[in-house]
Amino acid sequence: MSDESSTVLTIDRDRFHADFDTLASFGATAEGGVDRPAFSADHQAARRWFARRAEEAGLVVEVDGASNHSALLAVPGAEKTLVIGSHLDSVPTGGRFDGAFGVMAALEVLRRVKESGIQLSVNLMAIDFTDEESHYVEFLGSRAFTGKLPLAELQAPHAGRMSDAIAGLGLDLVAMANCGRDPQEYVGYLELHIEQGPRLINSATDIGIVESIIGIRFHRLVFTGQADHAGTTPMEIRRNAGLGAAAFTVALHELLETDFTDCVGNVGSMVLAPGVTNVVSKEAAVDFEFRFPDENRGDALEAQIKDRARSIAERFDLELEFTPMGRARSAQMDPALRRIVGEAARRLGLSAVSMHSGAAHDAQIMSAITPACVIFVPSVGGISHNPAEFSTREDCENGANVLLHTVLSGFGG
Amino acid sequence: MSDESSTVLTIDRDRFHADFDTLASFGATAEGGVDRPAFSADHQAARRWFARRAEEAGLVVEVDGASNHSALLAVPGAEKTLVIGSHLDSVPTGGRFDGAFGVMAALEVLRRVKESGIQLSVNLMAIDFTDEESHYVEFLGSRAFTGKLPLAELQAPHAGRMSDAIAGLGLDLVAMANCGRDPQEYVGYLELHIEQGPRLINSATDIGIVESIIGIRFHRLVFTGQADHAGTTPMEIRRNAGLGAAAFTVALHELLETDFTDCVGNVGSMVLAPGVTNVVSKEAAVDFEFRFPDENRGDALEAQIKDRARSIAERFDLELEFTPMGRARSAQMDPALRRIVGEAARRLGLSAVSMHSGAAHDAQIMSAITPACVIFVPSVGGISHNPAEFSTREDCENGANVLLHTVLSGFGG
Repeated sequence: MSDESSTVLTIDRDRFHADFDTLASFGATAEGGVDRPAFSADHQAARRWFARRAEEAGLVVEVDGASNHSALLAVPGAEKTLVIGSHLDSVPTGGRFDGAFGVMAALEVLRRVKESGIQLSVNLMAIDFTDEESHYVEFLGSRAFTGKLPLAELQAPHAGRMSDAIAGLGLDLVAMANCGRDPQEYVGYLELHIEQGPRLINSATDIGIVESIIGIRFHRLVFTGQADHAGTTPMEIRRNAGLGAAAFTVALHELLETDFTDCVGNVGSMVLAPGVTNVVSKEAAVDFEFRFPDENRGDALEAQIKDRARSIAERFDLELEFTPMGRARSAQMDPALRRIVGEAARRLGLSAVSMHSGAAHDAQIMSAITPACVIFVPSVGGISHNPAEFSTREDCENGANVLLHTVLSGFGG
Repeated sequence: MSDESSTVLTIDRDRFHADFDTLASFGATAEGGVDRPAFSADHQAARRWFARRAEEAGLVVEVDGASNHSALLAVPGAEKTLVIGSHLDSVPTGGRFDGAFGVMAALEVLRRVKESGIQLSVNLMAIDFTDEESHYVEFLGSRAFTGKLPLAELQAPHAGRMSDAIAGLGLDLVAMANCGRDPQEYVGYLELHIEQGPRLINSATDIGIVESIIGIRFHRLVFTGQADHAGTTPMEIRRNAGLGAAAFTVALHELLETDFTDCVGNVGSMVLAPGVTNVVSKEAAVDFEFRFPDENRGDALEAQIKDRARSIAERFDLELEFTPMGRARSAQMDPALRRIVGEAARRLGLSAVSMHSGAAHDAQIMSAITPACVIFVPSVGGISHNPAEFSTREDCENGANVLLHTVLSGFGG
């Protein structure tokens, strides 16, 4: 930040970092990261703590039917609301910045605006969306917020049973599916996030302004063969579902390395049944995702993936079932918001660059009902979804100040 | 069986089939098989029922430190014992014949000999060995019986914790490791089993006399890479442990299809961590086994497997750990016992053939301390480790009668 910054309103950096560090103690892992899958005890504890901190700041806390936790700085007479935030859940054994950074910055911005006495033209809401990491259902919280989360998806989550997960939390699936807001009440959504990639750090740029967010599709592919004795059954007549899963995983990567280098993909698990070495696998379930710059490329890649899977099933005499498990459409960020973010960075003396996001964010869900934008800060080493995920204190402060000034410039009184 | 059979002692076929059917009700699955992994509630119930049936027949039941269940027909003055039997545990969702058939036939042979009043030259023991299917530890029961089961293996089982598995069963690991018998007390071990392959059924042969049993080795291979965001990390810099596991599985099969067609192998599970699609897998554990006709071939195959695994680890920038998880050495069956089995079959008018066993059996463990032999009956379709596993009633009766007459001819008074 330049010297000029001392003359402009900035966040309370000590309070911000102290809160960030406290938050990182919920679900802290030995490796220095956090383990806070949605609805886990540590996730719930982190959310309760966030709500308490917001109440201590005199903000109005609300928990909606999808367990989205929000804090509101209400402006008398204002009819509309600007939402800023991210999510407090993490991937299993993830890092402490992903999502958490954006929520803590949002809370700090609300506190700072309140303390400054500046009257905004809109209400300001800091939000912690539920299950952004899609442990149970893709973007559960933001999709519920937008009213675009079918009950059927909640009834068939990826992991376990949703009803078990939310038992004792005062939630129910029907309420989750029915807590959509009226888009007319919102003027926009801003999300501050770590980049999770190496571009900013490698180019020594302070701020990334996201132009577009990749699309993502999750699928489960199940190969079914025949359980057989793994000693006595000749190799050439086995119908080995596990071999199908392995060959598919290799083929998916070949596809991404040749014809789809603008896309990425990942197999998260291969679950073989019955799962013992002395039985040829009867069934193999492969959970995977792929991401693409636009929906046309997504369609093309999906077609090729299915084609490869079918060839493999045929080659190993297996049956094949291909089930979509969720998706987020690729999205464009709002040009007006992007311009305001860029001006805020410039005023703070920070370098900024427009960029594409290879990570999915609640912002792309929110963009369906309101103008949205994501602001990035540099990730050291580009590492994320890993306990080693790290952004410097200065970069985090810079990002929070850009968020603050985007709010002030765009929605000042 | 030929007409001549009516003039010789045979099993009580109705009692035998009724007992076999009752046994199949313990852990019965909807698909018609059984699910009785070692120490499961259904396995324990099946063993208690077996012991009760033996006691009802006036036999002396014993449960040793490894939970091997045996029934003894003691002969006054006899110092040595002939052991016949197999195992009552199954693979997960397995068939009802594997192991169970041999135990039920052994019980029936003891009953029939007792009822006939024929005095053998040795005590006759029907045994149900613990965990032949190696759910916790390879051939736990027979290896404990032979005194060749190190405590360390019991302390590091494949599945869960052994101490949890045996809680409440009056067992402890030290007693398990220390219940080896004195080989001098035994004259031999005979095991009647389904073939689990297609050779007998395809050649319309009644009885298989096993000459040799394959060797088997179990290994766990762990690839370690780096957890990374599955959206933002460029494909070419990912250190994807799951991709290593998949490529290894494909490579193992290529090896078996080219240079090692006399061997077989199988990957039972690939467990990826953290196991979610939006994180590149940091770790992948591959549990697999391979089987070979003799130890030299086993050594050669193991060397090649390790070589392939190392190449894959290098290619994907992964670390590699290779852990032996157990083994059974290849074994020759006793020529004298094989001859007696062949004579018994001929006397009963049954066709018989000498053969190799691609499946592992407790007999190969027992062969280290006493002469051993395995007798096969045909498996319909060669299917095993599958609920569809099936052998006809007539073939099962034939096998039991061959076992009975092998006992009578070889160890008659």
